Formats: sequence, structure tokens, C-alpha cells
Amino acid sequence: MPHMKDKIIRVATSLFHRKGYFATSISEIAGLCGIQKASIYYHYASKEAILYQIHSTTMDDLTTYLKGNLQGVDGIEDCMRAAVRSHVRFHLERQKETFIANTELRGLTPEHYALIVAKRDTYEQIIQEIIQRGCAAGIFVDEDVKILSYAILTQCNAGAIWYKPGGRLTVDDIAEVYVRFALQGLMVR
Amino acid sequence: MPHMKDKIIRVATSLFHRKGYFATSISEIAGLCGIQKASIYYHYASKEAILYQIHSTTMDDLTTYLKGNLQGVDGIEDCMRAAVRSHVRFHLERQKETFIANTELRGLTPEHYALIVAKRDTYEQIIQEIIQRGCAAGIFVDEDVKILSYAILTQCNAGAIWYKPGGRLTVDDIAEVYVRFALQGLMVR
Repeated sequence: MPHMKDKIIRVATSLFHRKGYFATSISEIAGLCGIQKASIYYHYASKEAILYQIHSTTMDDLTTYLKGNLQGVDGIEDCMRAAVRSHVRFHLERQKETFIANTELRGLTPEHYALIVAKRDTYEQIIQEIIQRGCAAGIFVDEDVKILSYAILTQCNAGAIWYKPGGRLTVDDIAEVYVRFALQGLMVR
Repeated sequence: MPHMKDKIIRVATSLFHRKGYFATSISEIAGLCGIQKASIYYHYASKEAILYQIHSTTMDDLTTYLKGNLQGVDGIEDCMRAAVRSHVRFHLERQKETFIANTELRGLTPEHYALIVAKRDTYEQIIQEIIQRGCAAGIFVDEDVKILSYAILTQCNAGAIWYKPGGRLTVDDIAEVYVRFALQGLMVR
């Protein structure tokens, strides 16, 4: 059952998103997958291993998506636009995983926590490098680069909390508001 | 023991912040308060009642703090500055409560959840009204007011996650970066 590994992730993602990691039991995940509790352990060593898999895949996919979206983009402003657009779209399209990625870090073992924080640092550094280049070029405001990068990333993460598919605004509408707001905030007058 | 009610809140706030609401038991809270598990129920009907108390007090204090900081402030720009400053300071000074307020809503009963969401709406409306006045006056950019308000509030909330007292930057340093970034993003060029 190669697809059972994926099914477990899908079911666990839904449960962790709706109820939280600590409120979800392995038995519940197994039940919704239509397998015995013991069969889960054939695929994952523990509930924490499932959480780690979700964190790890989400961060890898987020970073790959960003790199792809920056490919061939020239100019600091356009790189920043592409980065914000990429970040927002990914968060709105993968609402559940990104919500878990942002709120369920405490559930990880110290070893896994360190690995995920390293992946987050790598991702944030790509954004910080663009901001730094903009500051150095005198295009972006001369503010603390870390605070600016966290501010921009977290204002976009928020989308993953309140966004409702099929609502008043599309993913693209929302992404463009964030892109304009971030650039307006960054660019020297 | 009138102060035991407060002690329970203080201990529960620490535990919910460190381990999460679902991972914390009533026995643990009682143990750290130096009382029997059954004695907790003399003060609070349930673990959820403690969580609700934390949410409710935090939202009331946040709103009172904002209203106080807006008292006597004239001009749309200065109101916005005062609002962002107020929001950031409160979040950094009451890191644990605001972190719980932003991440542990799922633990509430539907009735309590509705009450807290109403308090959040009231608070957000104060911010949205300032933005709306700025847009109407042609001072602020003509963007979706709700997205702008969520963007500004959540970028500041982030401070409560990464801020470390005694670190590189003071609460005031951080508040002023957010104030400048928000205003720069809002103001028409």
C-alpha cells in the first residue's frame, strides 16, 4: 500500500488543522484511514513522525516553489514582488499544511525541531537577501532587515488563517494586495 | 484564597504557552499551584474555563490599552501610529497571553469562541475605522481595508513569537520599526 503513507498524511493534516496536533490521537488517524492503529506504525514510527513529515514536506515545497518563481526574474523590485506573490499563493493554496507549519512546532522532538528551524532559516534568508540588496541599492528603506522580513512573511501567513476558498476575493486578488502593500512599505520615496 | 484564582491563571498561561492547551492537564496546573486537582474546580469549572478567562482578559486589556493610547490623539496618521505602537507594545509585553490568544482558539466551546470572536471584531473595527478614514481622506492607499488591517495586525503579532526580552532590540525600537513600516505602506505617495 504505497499510497497509504500519503493517505495517513492527508488525514493527519486535516485533523491537526481542525483539532490541533495534541488533541489528535493515532487511533483517530487510523480510523479515518480505515486501518488498525497498529498498521500506522508500519508507515510511521509515531504521531510525531507524521507531524515532522508534514513540516518537512511543507518547508521543502515552499522553498522549491519560491526558487522556481524567482527563476529568471531580474531586478530587485520584481524579485520582491515574485517572492511575496509566491509566499501568499503557497499559503492560500496549502492552507492546512502552512497553518500546521506555523502553529505546531512545539510538537516536534528537539532534533526534528532543529531540522525544521534550519529549513525555515534557509527560506527566510532568500527573502532577507532580496531586502538587503534593495537596501544596499538605496531602493528599499533602511530598516532592520530581519524585522522587515518577518513582518512581510507573517502578514502573508495570516491569509492562511482567514482565507476562504470561493469567498469574496480570489487567491490572485489577495496576493496582489500583499505584493503592493509590501512594496509600498519597502520602497524609498 | 482570592489570589489563588490569579495564580491558576498565571500558571496555566505559562503551561499553555510552553506546551499548548491540549497538552496541559488540570493536574499539572494544580500541581504547580500547590493545590489538589479537585481544588481547581472550586475556582474554575473546567480547563476550558481557564482558557476562556485568559482569552477574555487579554482581549479586554488589549482593547482598553488601544482606546487609552488613542485618547486625545488627533489626525489620521497619528492615530494610526498610536494604534500600531499600542498593538506592538501590548504583544511584546504580554507575549504569553497574546500568543495563546492567537493560537489556542480551537480549545474554546462554541459559545465562548463566539464571545471572543466578537471581542476581536470590536478591536479590529477600531483599526479598520482609522484606515477607512485615511482612505476616504485620500491619505492612505485605496486597498481592501480588511486585508490591510489584518496585514498590519498580524505582522505585529509576529513580534510576540520571536521577541526575546533583553535581546538586541528594545520593545520601543521594535514598535517604531513596525510603526514606520505600516505608515510607509499605507500612505499615498
